[in-house]
Amino acid sequence: MKVFIIGTGLIGGSFALDLKSSFKGIEVFGIDKNEDHLKEAVKSGIIDKEAEFKDLAEADLVYLAIPVDISLEVLPKVLDQINDNCLVTDAGSTKEELCKKVTNHPKRRNYLAGHPIAGTEFSGPSAAIKGLFSHKTNIICEVEKTAFKLQERALEIFHALGMRIRYMDPASHDRHIAYVSHLSHISAFMLGKTILEKEKNERDIFDLAGSGFASTVRLAKSSPAMWTPIFSQNKKNVIETLDEYISNLQHFRQLMEADDFEEVFNEMEKTNHIKDVLNGITQNENLKILENGK
Amino acid sequence: MKVFIIGTGLIGGSFALDLKSSFKGIEVFGIDKNEDHLKEAVKSGIIDKEAEFKDLAEADLVYLAIPVDISLEVLPKVLDQINDNCLVTDAGSTKEELCKKVTNHPKRRNYLAGHPIAGTEFSGPSAAIKGLFSHKTNIICEVEKTAFKLQERALEIFHALGMRIRYMDPASHDRHIAYVSHLSHISAFMLGKTILEKEKNERDIFDLAGSGFASTVRLAKSSPAMWTPIFSQNKKNVIETLDEYISNLQHFRQLMEADDFEEVFNEMEKTNHIKDVLNGITQNENLKILENGK
Repeated sequence: MKVFIIGTGLIGGSFALDLKSSFKGIEVFGIDKNEDHLKEAVKSGIIDKEAEFKDLAEADLVYLAIPVDISLEVLPKVLDQINDNCLVTDAGSTKEELCKKVTNHPKRRNYLAGHPIAGTEFSGPSAAIKGLFSHKTNIICEVEKTAFKLQERALEIFHALGMRIRYMDPASHDRHIAYVSHLSHISAFMLGKTILEKEKNERDIFDLAGSGFASTVRLAKSSPAMWTPIFSQNKKNVIETLDEYISNLQHFRQLMEADDFEEVFNEMEKTNHIKDVLNGITQNENLKILENGK
Repeated sequence: MKVFIIGTGLIGGSFALDLKSSFKGIEVFGIDKNEDHLKEAVKSGIIDKEAEFKDLAEADLVYLAIPVDISLEVLPKVLDQINDNCLVTDAGSTKEELCKKVTNHPKRRNYLAGHPIAGTEFSGPSAAIKGLFSHKTNIICEVEKTAFKLQERALEIFHALGMRIRYMDPASHDRHIAYVSHLSHISAFMLGKTILEKEKNERDIFDLAGSGFASTVRLAKSSPAMWTPIFSQNKKNVIETLDEYISNLQHFRQLMEADDFEEVFNEMEKTNHIKDVLNGITQNENLKILENGK
């Protein structure tokens, strides 16, 4: 099977590593506009050969793992090049604009819109790790628009990598993911900003901050090049979640200002049962940390 | 050495466990208004015997690890009971009010104000773990008000437990810690609230949320009984940090609204170097996760 990875970073690289260890006879080609990443990905054995768009006619599988604004240009180009039996899928964090973009493409049935809820705050081929997708959810959108046999091939691959599958329409995907992913990133970035602005002596932050702070602000290490187009494409939903978040923070502040600490207590207690929701995620994550030894 | 732990939860329990493995001839007594916790702490071997306030006259060391509002009542009572050679120290997350409260107490020199930057989002004696304080910072306030020989004894204990020491005045402590600890908790609680309000079907949150969300919202599992009095005592500083955080979030929202995604990118990029600040904390934390096997 000839696999083309477009974008040989954390996600594309990890996908290639898992494919190689799950299936025999996999040949992995890499396409990346970042020459250094491409060379690094070859050197570290993530991909076997560098390739170009014109080579896509030979592809059995194309995996798109690039910033979501660039996907809007690249996905139609990919569909233009591939043969009739090729499966194209992607890892983009927004789905509505991309699905709209190719809705009338003659090769629409070769594309399966995906979003694996997997990743770390790191990026580039050096961040690629084996098992990244294990026990993670892959959200698939507009499955009915993909050819049956290519749906089947995709599911076989996703299952081999250990992913759970959830089906959603692109608009619902973008709305829900604004809450559970995009908002967390803004909250972490702005928390980081608030503290860096205040604490000019960074050695002091390091000394006083504990693991709780590190955990809350962790996503502020994420790549701006990846996240800016996500916020742009999901602008309406993200602004809505931000408004609700800001309003909740203002309410909490007002309760404190009014010395209503009984209600401050209630606010926290009502949210405490998020424990139960998180238990599963955290267990998987700690397992991963142990497995990867980092 | 007779050690009295007042508050046999996560912090007090972990302190007792480490003391026992670091020093010989330690006898640990527990005082806790929660009878169940006290029995559980005895049963699991964290403390050797239940005790009462009147027994404190025998104590060589008293460790106070209770909510900060209750410390205001309990610390003077403890100082009233102890003998002249006893060291009293505590783990409270706010220091200004407590230091003021005992400033004129005749036994002020027996007290060392401390705040170990250690903990997890769990609570109670079952959450106590060995090595919790290893590689963590203990912030000590008003060290000059503690008797020399008791300062020395305290440092010997803290070093044996693996803690780094940092000295600050209580007002600076409360101001800095509002940024690096208290604000993170509010940010996590309100993020949790925003998502729970929106996503009534919690199974869906679980399926769509990844480790990034789990990390950002982790502190929303913390104990409201512990955190409400912290916010109350540090009200002025916490409101100031909240105002700055809300203002940063509003600015980010306005940039998105105005489609100024170049500046959205810059906002994130400027905060990205928090990576370097966090590296040390995260390394310690992962080490702990590996050591504890969970």
